[in-house]
Amino acid sequence: MPEAPPPPPLGGVLETCLYVAEMARARAFYEDVLGLAPMFSDERLTAYPVGGRSALLLFLRGSTTATVHLPGGTIPPHDGAGPAHCALAVAAADLPGWEARLAAMGVAVEGRTRWARGSTSLYFRDPDGHLLELATPGLWPIY
Amino acid sequence: MPEAPPPPPLGGVLETCLYVAEMARARAFYEDVLGLAPMFSDERLTAYPVGGRSALLLFLRGSTTATVHLPGGTIPPHDGAGPAHCALAVAAADLPGWEARLAAMGVAVEGRTRWARGSTSLYFRDPDGHLLELATPGLWPIY
Repeated sequence: MPEAPPPPPLGGVLETCLYVAEMARARAFYEDVLGLAPMFSDERLTAYPVGGRSALLLFLRGSTTATVHLPGGTIPPHDGAGPAHCALAVAAADLPGWEARLAAMGVAVEGRTRWARGSTSLYFRDPDGHLLELATPGLWPIY
Repeated sequence: MPEAPPPPPLGGVLETCLYVAEMARARAFYEDVLGLAPMFSDERLTAYPVGGRSALLLFLRGSTTATVHLPGGTIPPHDGAGPAHCALAVAAADLPGWEARLAAMGVAVEGRTRWARGSTSLYFRDPDGHLLELATPGLWPIY
């Protein structure tokens, strides 16, 4: 049997997806509270650029369970549920501003951790219960 | 009522999480097929750096449903289910190498799309049914 060719490099996670029950409610949170601005939005999907080359995608739960046929090809089914987690990078100097922002918008900080390498993480929920984290540098060897 | 301070900038999505049923099976896929190397791993979590500053986190499904108490603070509960989606960035020149790699490792390409801006996306599944995408530049305004 021929040996498999080696895996080429991966350039990063491009799209991170969360599945939401109500698009309007989710958009109000991600746009009015977190300050994100969509680069695409329809009933099924809202896509936000986040700090450069990463994209946060909100899909309406249950709306992507059939193959999508496009002029250029197909997107297979996907969906998700549960209070999934994702973390967003923030500068250490901006953490107090974020704490003030969340407090003023009525978003409760549900947890907080100081990591051994010097990072601080704040945890809070979006309207679907997803556990969001704002993390300052010093959490991972790569950050 | 005082006006809320503006949201400070976000530096990108730092952590993207998938929830897996069997950690050993998932690790075999992400490491042996996709070529990722963990920066942390225990029974509950395997964390992979992906192309610089993004991290892909595999959590054992159901293992993070209680608050985690650490010396530096707490991590609130989170969990996820379903064939969620995430996309990884690859250079256009590396796409043929990835197709050869996936074919040689017995991973079926389930969908393929050519986007208007010039990107190509390949879709396939991890052992938990998550819909993974390898996307070349030209998909989003930011990529």
